[in-house]
Amino acid sequence: MITSGTTTVRLTAKGAATRLRIVEGAAAEIRERGAATTTLDDIRARTATSKSQIFHYFPGGKDELLLAVAALEAERILEDQQPHLDDLGRLDTWQAWRDWRDAVVRRYERQGVNCPLGVLMTELGRRTPASQQLTGQLLAQWQSALRDGVRCMQGSGRMDPALDADRTAAALIAAVQGGVTVLMATGSIAHLEAALDTTLELLGRFDAE
Amino acid sequence: MITSGTTTVRLTAKGAATRLRIVEGAAAEIRERGAATTTLDDIRARTATSKSQIFHYFPGGKDELLLAVAALEAERILEDQQPHLDDLGRLDTWQAWRDWRDAVVRRYERQGVNCPLGVLMTELGRRTPASQQLTGQLLAQWQSALRDGVRCMQGSGRMDPALDADRTAAALIAAVQGGVTVLMATGSIAHLEAALDTTLELLGRFDAE
Repeated sequence: MITSGTTTVRLTAKGAATRLRIVEGAAAEIRERGAATTTLDDIRARTATSKSQIFHYFPGGKDELLLAVAALEAERILEDQQPHLDDLGRLDTWQAWRDWRDAVVRRYERQGVNCPLGVLMTELGRRTPASQQLTGQLLAQWQSALRDGVRCMQGSGRMDPALDADRTAAALIAAVQGGVTVLMATGSIAHLEAALDTTLELLGRFDAE
Repeated sequence: MITSGTTTVRLTAKGAATRLRIVEGAAAEIRERGAATTTLDDIRARTATSKSQIFHYFPGGKDELLLAVAALEAERILEDQQPHLDDLGRLDTWQAWRDWRDAVVRRYERQGVNCPLGVLMTELGRRTPASQQLTGQLLAQWQSALRDGVRCMQGSGRMDPALDADRTAAALIAAVQGGVTVLMATGSIAHLEAALDTTLELLGRFDAE
């Protein structure tokens, strides 16, 4: 069962596969052409689907499809940080944190000034309830994985147990978001690297003492 | 002499005052109505100026005026952090850094999810050379003031001299930008506070040792 915006559609395995094909095709089309100029007809042509199929899976039309694409792009943001962020508490050594830092920097270096999720959010309206819910979920999931990592490092005596793990994770999220905001405004990745490196260096001093 | 975009206009004191009145009126109108829906006629009506006056000061029309409004909003961002950021190296005690932190949080609390500069940049196109130049200047000026503060604290033995002052300043800029990005997406100021508090707490540990 997939809940997306206001509609809930119960899908067969084949139906779910078709829906995913439409969403992935739409995501590729939007990455190439932009969200504003991509039409449902473009997406139909790319995914070889009929209008009735599109409206079967996305009764709300383009906005509902864009929201599903945004959810896919949000998942990809976390996937690009795998296996560093997962349920198994993989951020359990300094090397794991450095690998995570490198995965984040690589992702945004590759992406440059084009943020597919940002483009979709702008098109959908950043302050619509659906957009805010999606952003909130992404941030909460991301922060929770980082918090688990901080707790793990605190447990093994590598990070200071006196630190609030959740606020430390929030600060790391802000470091990434701020670095990406500057990257998108200026084209330079230096702030992202400086923010992650400085925060990790300062966190690491507890261990070095 | 004021250089704005492609035009350079040499102004008398009276001319500069009229130009400033137009820019401030336009800024107020745009804060109330948004950049996209504000017309030159709205700005003329609010500032009691004629069409020929507007085009005398802004030969490039609305885009040139919007850029001047964006420059004003950029100045205000730094002004709201005064007297903490100035040429006299005022970030020279932990109390000064806490006061600066409070000034930043207050500014964005007051502003909420509406960033006047962000709105203007979106309207002007974030990647136009003029927008990028303006953003680059604002960030460089801001970072330079924070770097001076870090150096001052390093000089008095309160922050670790081993830290790269410029990258530490870049990390603080990213903390602010990231916190504001999350604030605009979710309406919560918690990430901004967590980012500034965590970074300052970690920086302060050197002094406490």
